[in-house]
Amino acid sequence: MDRKHIEEKIEYLRRLSTGGLHMTDFLLTWEKTDEEIAAVFTVAEILRGLRRNNLSARFFDSGLAISIFRDNSTRTRFSFASAANFLGLAVQDLDEGKSQIAHGETVRETAAMVSFMADVIGIRDDMYIGRGNAYMREVAAAVQQGHDAGILEQRPTLVNLQCDIDHPTQSMSDMLHLIHRFGGIENLRGKKIVMSWAYSPSYGKPLSVPQGIVGLMTRFGMDVVLAYPPGYEIMPDVEEVAVKNAQASGGTFRKINNMREAFTDADVVYPKSWAPFAAMEKRTSLYGEGDMEGIKALEKELLAQNAAFHDWECTEDLMKKTRDDRALYMHCLPADITGVSCREGEVAAFVFDRYRDRLYAQAGHKPYIVAAMIFLARFADPAVKLIHRLHEGRMRIW
Amino acid sequence: MDRKHIEEKIEYLRRLSTGGLHMTDFLLTWEKTDEEIAAVFTVAEILRGLRRNNLSARFFDSGLAISIFRDNSTRTRFSFASAANFLGLAVQDLDEGKSQIAHGETVRETAAMVSFMADVIGIRDDMYIGRGNAYMREVAAAVQQGHDAGILEQRPTLVNLQCDIDHPTQSMSDMLHLIHRFGGIENLRGKKIVMSWAYSPSYGKPLSVPQGIVGLMTRFGMDVVLAYPPGYEIMPDVEEVAVKNAQASGGTFRKINNMREAFTDADVVYPKSWAPFAAMEKRTSLYGEGDMEGIKALEKELLAQNAAFHDWECTEDLMKKTRDDRALYMHCLPADITGVSCREGEVAAFVFDRYRDRLYAQAGHKPYIVAAMIFLARFADPAVKLIHRLHEGRMRIW
Amino acid sequence: MDRKHIEEKIEYLRRLSTGGLHMTDFLLTWEKTDEEIAAVFTVAEILRGLRRNNLSARFFDSGLAISIFRDNSTRTRFSFASAANFLGLAVQDLDEGKSQIAHGETVRETAAMVSFMADVIGIRDDMYIGRGNAYMREVAAAVQQGHDAGILEQRPTLVNLQCDIDHPTQSMSDMLHLIHRFGGIENLRGKKIVMSWAYSPSYGKPLSVPQGIVGLMTRFGMDVVLAYPPGYEIMPDVEEVAVKNAQASGGTFRKINNMREAFTDADVVYPKSWAPFAAMEKRTSLYGEGDMEGIKALEKELLAQNAAFHDWECTEDLMKKTRDDRALYMHCLPADITGVSCREGEVAAFVFDRYRDRLYAQAGHKPYIVAAMIFLARFADPAVKLIHRLHEGRMRIW
Repeated sequence: MDRKHIEEKIEYLRRLSTGGLHMTDFLLTWEKTDEEIAAVFTVAEILRGLRRNNLSARFFDSGLAISIFRDNSTRTRFSFASAANFLGLAVQDLDEGKSQIAHGETVRETAAMVSFMADVIGIRDDMYIGRGNAYMREVAAAVQQGHDAGILEQRPTLVNLQCDIDHPTQSMSDMLHLIHRFGGIENLRGKKIVMSWAYSPSYGKPLSVPQGIVGLMTRFGMDVVLAYPPGYEIMPDVEEVAVKNAQASGGTFRKINNMREAFTDADVVYPKSWAPFAAMEKRTSLYGEGDMEGIKALEKELLAQNAAFHDWECTEDLMKKTRDDRALYMHCLPADITGVSCREGEVAAFVFDRYRDRLYAQAGHKPYIVAAMIFLARFADPAVKLIHRLHEGRMRIW
Repeated sequence: MDRKHIEEKIEYLRRLSTGGLHMTDFLLTWEKTDEEIAAVFTVAEILRGLRRNNLSARFFDSGLAISIFRDNSTRTRFSFASAANFLGLAVQDLDEGKSQIAHGETVRETAAMVSFMADVIGIRDDMYIGRGNAYMREVAAAVQQGHDAGILEQRPTLVNLQCDIDHPTQSMSDMLHLIHRFGGIENLRGKKIVMSWAYSPSYGKPLSVPQGIVGLMTRFGMDVVLAYPPGYEIMPDVEEVAVKNAQASGGTFRKINNMREAFTDADVVYPKSWAPFAAMEKRTSLYGEGDMEGIKALEKELLAQNAAFHDWECTEDLMKKTRDDRALYMHCLPADITGVSCREGEVAAFVFDRYRDRLYAQAGHKPYIVAAMIFLARFADPAVKLIHRLHEGRMRIW
Repeated sequence: MDRKHIEEKIEYLRRLSTGGLHMTDFLLTWEKTDEEIAAVFTVAEILRGLRRNNLSARFFDSGLAISIFRDNSTRTRFSFASAANFLGLAVQDLDEGKSQIAHGETVRETAAMVSFMADVIGIRDDMYIGRGNAYMREVAAAVQQGHDAGILEQRPTLVNLQCDIDHPTQSMSDMLHLIHRFGGIENLRGKKIVMSWAYSPSYGKPLSVPQGIVGLMTRFGMDVVLAYPPGYEIMPDVEEVAVKNAQASGGTFRKINNMREAFTDADVVYPKSWAPFAAMEKRTSLYGEGDMEGIKALEKELLAQNAAFHDWECTEDLMKKTRDDRALYMHCLPADITGVSCREGEVAAFVFDRYRDRLYAQAGHKPYIVAAMIFLARFADPAVKLIHRLHEGRMRIW
């Protein structure tokens, strides 16, 4: 991407209405307008362009980006760290294990205590249905309150790094991958994407990826198919979002209980295991009651349920059903690869290997998506800042 | 705080004698002169002023701020990280669990090994009476020796982030809070502050906060009352400091065994649990002897002793005894709040809630206090540096 | 070191052929030419010179330096952090315990996922013979592949922070220490250095230090003696490297089974415990088979074997056998000091204490060696960059 190309992107950005992103959190993609979504993609591309031209995106001379990971994560952690560093922020991890939070501190108090010099807070909390997004909103309310009361000089921006409902940095990276594949956001219209359940020997995988995908991909006129065995329903609220989005965008949203049928003539397939929403709700209740026996029983039940659908695997044979035999295969990684990471899994090794480089490229959008979300939340005049940086020519590496 | 106000603060700073802070550690407030203490408050305010005006305080283009936390901490960790980042230093945590220190390395060796490029070392070590401050001085001696021997190119500054004797970043933040409340350090004279023991269902809370408070607040002419049930004496050495300070400053220092009496006509109350000094000394001995049975017995004994004073709670009723019914309630947080974080605790929920915002603001001074301590230790000409930065106009966020 | 001296060093660097270092990894010293090795020493000295003159070496405005420590480490961790920070990179730790790597991710995938914005990866993996260096090459191949496929915008440089074969940042720091001691790399010729096994009550210490030493010190015409009790052979491949190096450089490489004889007329002694190569190979096999009983049996056997040679201690008496009674004593630290860190150890306390400052100075080269390795790998025109920085005068501390 040469400078002329970057300038065009900035000019495009300038015409988008992005004020709604300024000083707000990024928690669910469906809380943002189409222009705002497009702005995130555009800024992500511009930031990548700057970096490719060895230009610095250090817009912060100092500042903290707090990360709160309530679940393990390598990729998302590095995406967040990369984005923060590229913008000039230092990551400070809030390790609840090490901290005094476990000792009865309220969310409100901790949120204030850590945020005196924080510009950004990234949270991953996807373990319990009904909890993750709620926790983020609690933190958001706390820092807002702190700012309103004059306690926090700045109100840090929250970025959802995966919750129980949505995984916006993932779904946005995925869509940017599709934009690259099809040559523009306008070319997504009419393309068929299949978000399909797939078998995994583990259980309880988060719903945030399939929910994030159907909640976002339905917005730009795609034909979105959600395929899963009976019983693997996602959260009804998100289905509703998908239905409304499809109506508004002129796309479609369908559910289907047959993987083969779903794959037929698909342009994009995204086969991935997830846990049934109802079971995850039950797990949260059991966890709340401290019923460890109940949780163990549920696990056993879920594994047995999974096993009944071990033929839900993305095989070469299935891929041949797709449009011209060559749909784009997607995954948020890591995948359960048959014969590699497990005996039977989500995808055949042959299929996975063929798409490996593209899967990595798909993941490579995430740091820029995160950086774009932060950038658009912190700067009222993003296009002005970016064009200035482009012309100023401050280098990333001297 | 506008630029004119900042300039006035810098002008005030210029007239203070701060040379004694240059290239020294900040371990105990009573090792510093009144002018030096005043300088820390002033620089803290100036740094806050710079930040509020979106000016950068990045005086280090590179450099490490090492943190050594021998006890868990969220707030202090973030204060230190915020201060370091604001000045341009990167935090590198020395995690003794992960390190080889446990394998028999001497303090001297480790201190040298980690400090080749360190400008600052922040240490929190408050677990054992007789140990924390001693450890800090051991580290200080080690880096001094290393510097004298030409091994360390720079001699890192130590900042006491809480030890067994004092908690200077806390007491200084607390006093800055009072300066704001009463409109100037000169207005503290004659104000009555009560540092009172309060009941907690846990035991063994550090003495460093009450000791830090009486060791500092007695310096500027306040009437300082230390209230506690019989048996909850603090360290005699610190009491002596408080007595001398009060004499020198024209204030008073009294001890009293009655909470209600203490609260009467108080301008400021600081009710907080702590452990008896004698018991903590005993615990250190038991720990040194590896007598885990003895430690368990001591714990039981202390909890029983605490329970006898469960009515030492900061209630609304008690608050009504204070000056005009509205003393300033302070706490270093987290507090044991009755009915919230425990059944019976240090403070009634109603009282705590009324002061919540002010308590958070109180805590919000800490990053600036830490930054000011570092700044004054590293720069011989603080006022010159600050006025230069003000006029140069380097922005924190571009 | 004044500016004129730095300029001379840069001029010397300019005449060295360093192109072979550009965009390559630093895994084994013997993969580098003599000029490249000399360039690392020279850049290390220049960087130190810049720092001493309060000049910044921040050549990166942003960028990540990933650290992967598969074994505990304080010193190396801080050396890496110091080097990265001095150059402007932020350290991001890949904690495999916390990450999803344990869940079956391939090295290739993880390497790509964390490297989207990484300029450097430092790895320490010295626990298992046949594993550490192999792992590094796997990571190197992965990031190369990722870069070739267009997934990684930059190909991060790997720095070996200790593996099963070599410990280049250690041996290079050690040699820089000798260069200082003898007044130039050219003065190493003909000096006798003894890398000697020494007794330790622990077992299984890495071979990378003795191997690194004989693999490097044989290159510049030194008389290198490797002394150890029968059975404590190092890796045959490295011995071969040492033999070839000595032939090429006009030095010598000898093995000897007598510590006293080895010390006679030595200019430098480096007494340090290590485990027999054959035993470590066996351990790797046992570990691979999950044979924990076998590992325990092996440990017992090795401790018994060690005990037979508890008189292999660097005593004052032995030191008197060395050249003019005052060979330079070296150690990579921490040492097992008799009567201090153990009952019987590698070195007498009296000897150790006499050399303490010099041992710390020896260690103090490491951050600069690491920084020099990174610098030479990332910049095609190192001398130009450095002279520019010298004249530009950007300060480290304002």
